[in-house]
Amino acid sequence: MTLPRIAVDAMGGDDGVRVMVEGAALARREHDTFKFLLVGDQARIEAALETHPNMRGASEILHCEDVVGGDEKPSRALRRARTTSMGLAVDAVKRGEAGAAVSAGNTGALMAMSKLALRTMPGLDRPALAALLPTLGEDDVIMLDLGANRDCDARNLVQFAIMGAAYSRIVTGRERPRVRLLNIGTEETKGTEDIQEAANRLRASTGLAMDFEGFVEADKINRGQCDVVVCDGFSGNIALKAIEGAARFVTDLLKQAFSSSIRSKVGFLVSRPATELLKHHLDPNNHNGAVFLGLNGVVVKSHGSANAKGVANAVKVAARLLEDDIVNRIAHDLGEVSDMGFAANGAAK
Amino acid sequence: MTLPRIAVDAMGGDDGVRVMVEGAALARREHDTFKFLLVGDQARIEAALETHPNMRGASEILHCEDVVGGDEKPSRALRRARTTSMGLAVDAVKRGEAGAAVSAGNTGALMAMSKLALRTMPGLDRPALAALLPTLGEDDVIMLDLGANRDCDARNLVQFAIMGAAYSRIVTGRERPRVRLLNIGTEETKGTEDIQEAANRLRASTGLAMDFEGFVEADKINRGQCDVVVCDGFSGNIALKAIEGAARFVTDLLKQAFSSSIRSKVGFLVSRPATELLKHHLDPNNHNGAVFLGLNGVVVKSHGSANAKGVANAVKVAARLLEDDIVNRIAHDLGEVSDMGFAANGAAK
Repeated sequence: MTLPRIAVDAMGGDDGVRVMVEGAALARREHDTFKFLLVGDQARIEAALETHPNMRGASEILHCEDVVGGDEKPSRALRRARTTSMGLAVDAVKRGEAGAAVSAGNTGALMAMSKLALRTMPGLDRPALAALLPTLGEDDVIMLDLGANRDCDARNLVQFAIMGAAYSRIVTGRERPRVRLLNIGTEETKGTEDIQEAANRLRASTGLAMDFEGFVEADKINRGQCDVVVCDGFSGNIALKAIEGAARFVTDLLKQAFSSSIRSKVGFLVSRPATELLKHHLDPNNHNGAVFLGLNGVVVKSHGSANAKGVANAVKVAARLLEDDIVNRIAHDLGEVSDMGFAANGAAK
Repeated sequence: MTLPRIAVDAMGGDDGVRVMVEGAALARREHDTFKFLLVGDQARIEAALETHPNMRGASEILHCEDVVGGDEKPSRALRRARTTSMGLAVDAVKRGEAGAAVSAGNTGALMAMSKLALRTMPGLDRPALAALLPTLGEDDVIMLDLGANRDCDARNLVQFAIMGAAYSRIVTGRERPRVRLLNIGTEETKGTEDIQEAANRLRASTGLAMDFEGFVEADKINRGQCDVVVCDGFSGNIALKAIEGAARFVTDLLKQAFSSSIRSKVGFLVSRPATELLKHHLDPNNHNGAVFLGLNGVVVKSHGSANAKGVANAVKVAARLLEDDIVNRIAHDLGEVSDMGFAANGAAK
């Protein structure tokens, strides 16, 4: 199968064109079948391409001058879906001119534009933002929703579980990913009514391609004991950012500690391979690329501050999802349970 | 002022009597004015006291045989408030036989018993569970609520802010602690209606002894840029546990990395003072002692898995709050704003 090309919003992110083009080139160095549609200011993209000969013949430029602002309200950005680099990258997916879109711009605007252009999949109430997090185990854990939906009811959570499991099958290769709902305790009585109802539905269902294993508390997300953590967008955002902040806190303390004396500095130099390993494992660039699941198309959000390696990872996530046909996998899994009251048109709730 | 004695539930926690008595003794080694009422099995407490001569003459034993189970439902435990070590420790505060109670038992049961015996302070809707977290700055940050109230409205959040600020004044010495509401973004439009309304009220009020500085995202909790982080109990529990889990995740990775080669092991030994500093800073025992704020009395929850140093810290937290008269400070601060629609009997909401 020839992989459809990937539309890259070349203007989004803190460092803009240079890092987006370098990231695409980096991904292409590993996968020389990747092809790109680079959307943004033609002159600046051409300048950035000059240092990346491996991108010649593999990328087309779609010129535009308008850019969505980092702090811009999604509703305002939405009105410029036809003129901005973000809007045109997503639109390319809609028109079949690209298989997936990658942007490092404003998350809310990207979500709004993607929903408008690609529409939510039939049978699904709401898309969700999913990301991979590192664990102590062999595989990454998928967490969703991470902020696309502030409030979620039981049916949303069940649908997120189905989508997360489909994504996890691609990432981990497990036929039945281990799914848990994020909660403030593991006893059945813990949490909101929606969380409890979602748990009851997941527990009762037998047709799902997953093992639902109950609740997980936020301190166990990274232990490698489950493959998918499902939550509403508010809790997910809090948990994800708390993890990021705590990891940075510890590494900052470590830096302070290692520079506190000459002996520590020597120790640091001697143990550099160990600390490099740690740095590699914790570098958010190695886990860059959050995915909007549940749309009729693949859209990947690269972190605004990601470097070229990070952007390359986001591109590889998009390619992987295309290759493994995530959209049809989710459609299939949602279809399997449409008669169980889970799907959007079901009778329950 | 003579410090009132502290009632210690000697039976709670994973390691029970031995660690609770050792913790009390450890605290008393630093503060020889501390006096204790040790509640639990007399024979076992006496046995534990044998190795701590500094506790002689400083502690009385209140014998009982019943113990609240770690997984017991609060409603069930509540029926045995008069016979369990936890219930009797809290009851001692109510009867004025102790100034504060410390327990490492079941959090939900401790909260329920404390509320029943000591009652919520006048002018306050709900007590909250508050804890100190380490930061990159000089002072610890106070976060509340951490799980006592799953759902909170705007007025609850405002009252938590007032209580957190009173606690922070004691801990940091700042006249006007910097207070923020936990949210999923810092823009004014972010978050639930209750969070936004709480922010509006805190922003509009001028009589509060704090500087309200808007929202904080979960990745900034430990940066040392604010003194009090206010949230509902669900989000607070998620954030706290995510931070604990991520910190453990990083230190586990570090251990793995340092034992990955001989060179790393040597580096570890050389840089041991640095890693010890890190270990000290991250050891949860050094921040042990969560406080139920908003009751007519001081109740401190020690972590179930805390060691003797941790228990000693919980005892010191209780002593500090007694010394600085937290109950009357909060009553005073709530009284100051009772005409502003914040207090329980106010007109608003």
